[in-house]
Amino acid sequence: MHHFWGLRQGRNLILNEEESRHARSVLRLPDGELVRVLDGEGSAWEGPLQFINKREAMVVNALEVPNYGAVSGSFHLYVAPTKNLDRLEWLLEKSVEMGMHSLTLLECARSERRRLKLDRLERVMQAACKQSGKGRLPLLHGPIPFAQALEQCTSEQKAIAALIDGADSHFLPPLIRSNPGESWSVFIGPEGDFNESEVSAAQSKGFSLVHLGPHRLRTETAGLYAVAAFAQRLGA
Amino acid sequence: MHHFWGLRQGRNLILNEEESRHARSVLRLPDGELVRVLDGEGSAWEGPLQFINKREAMVVNALEVPNYGAVSGSFHLYVAPTKNLDRLEWLLEKSVEMGMHSLTLLECARSERRRLKLDRLERVMQAACKQSGKGRLPLLHGPIPFAQALEQCTSEQKAIAALIDGADSHFLPPLIRSNPGESWSVFIGPEGDFNESEVSAAQSKGFSLVHLGPHRLRTETAGLYAVAAFAQRLGA
Repeated sequence: MHHFWGLRQGRNLILNEEESRHARSVLRLPDGELVRVLDGEGSAWEGPLQFINKREAMVVNALEVPNYGAVSGSFHLYVAPTKNLDRLEWLLEKSVEMGMHSLTLLECARSERRRLKLDRLERVMQAACKQSGKGRLPLLHGPIPFAQALEQCTSEQKAIAALIDGADSHFLPPLIRSNPGESWSVFIGPEGDFNESEVSAAQSKGFSLVHLGPHRLRTETAGLYAVAAFAQRLGA
Repeated sequence: MHHFWGLRQGRNLILNEEESRHARSVLRLPDGELVRVLDGEGSAWEGPLQFINKREAMVVNALEVPNYGAVSGSFHLYVAPTKNLDRLEWLLEKSVEMGMHSLTLLECARSERRRLKLDRLERVMQAACKQSGKGRLPLLHGPIPFAQALEQCTSEQKAIAALIDGADSHFLPPLIRSNPGESWSVFIGPEGDFNESEVSAAQSKGFSLVHLGPHRLRTETAGLYAVAAFAQRLGA
C-alpha cells in the first residue's frame, strides 16, 4: 500500500500539493485507491484517496493505525556530521528505516564539518519514513557544541563510543541488551574520533565508554551499528 | 596506522604498483613508516615500509597479527542486486566493515538487475577492508540462480527474510543469538521480495522464515540489518 505524508484534522488527512501531484501524476493512482497517510506523530491513517482538484487530495474519515512501524523504547543518536554529506544523508535514511527516534548533530573538537542544510536532511528523513512505513518522523537537532549536548542528554542510559588507548570499554550491543532501560543515547564521534577530554567529560556525566567490535568503522557505519543494536535488542 | 594490500612471500609483503604509489605520492609516507599490510587471508603484517624504487614498496620480515579485525564465526549473505548500483556498493562497503565473511548475489524471480561488474564490487570490498582493518577479504560470488544458491548453501543455520501474508516468521536477531551455530546464511530478496514458491523451496531445504522488525526495509538496509545481527550476537 502506498504511503503519503498528510496534515491531520480530526480523522481527515490532507495531502499537500507535492504529495497530491505525486499520487496523481507519478504513481497515477485512481480515485478511491486505498492508501496510508502518515501524520508524523506516530500513526498511519488508512482510507481511500480522494482527489479534490488538480492540487489537492485527501483521505476522509480514516482508520488510525497507531505506533505505525515503531521500534519500542527511545533511541537518541548523537553524531558528528561526516565530511562527505552523502554519507550523513545515508546514515539518516538508514537510521530512520531501522527505527531511530531522534538525532542530534554534534560539534566536536575534531569535527571537520560544522555547517549543514537541515531542511535537506529533513527531506531525507521524510522520504525514509514513507519508504519504510513509519508514522513518527524522528526529531533532528543541531548542530550543537559537544558540551551542550552532554548537558541536554537526559536518557536513562548513555554511552560514548571511542577508542582511547589503555581505557576499558564495553561492547555496546550486549550492554544495551543487558540493560532494562528503554531510553538510550549513544554518542558517535567525527572521523578523527572524540578526544580524551571529551570522553572524560562524558564519563563524568554518567556515560559508559563503549566500543563497536574489532573494527575501525566509519562515522556513518558506527552510527548505524548503534541504531541496529538498539532496534535488535529485544527477544521478539 | 595505515593499511595496504600486499602479496605475501613468507614474512615479506610486496605492495603492487598502485598501493606503492598511493603510499609514496598520496599519503607521502617516509621510508621506514610503520604500516600494516593485509594479506587477504586473514592476517595483517606489521613492519616498516621500504620503498624499493618508484613503483615498488615492501615490508620485510613483518610481524603477523592473525585474525585481524575478524568477527568470529561465519556469516554468508545472499542478496539480490538492487536496481541502483550505488545501493549495492554501499551494502558491500558496510557489510565488509561490520565483518561479513562471504556474499553471493542472487537471481530471483522478481530481480530487476541481473548483470554486474564484479571487479568493481571487488574493489569496493578491498577498500572497505583497508579502511576498517580486516585481514580477510570476503568472498564474492554470483550472480547465480536462486535454486542453485539453495543447493550450494551449506551453513548449519539458514534463514530467508520475506513478508508472506499469513505465514509465521521469526525475528532474526534473537534467532541468531539463541542459536549456538557459528555458521549462518541469510537470504535477502530483491525490491519486490521473494515470491511464495521461492520461500517454500527454501523452507523445504531447512531454512527458517524470518522478519526484520516492524519495518519495510530497502534491500540494502535489510542486508546490513542481517550482518549487524550476526556481528552483534555475542556477549563480549
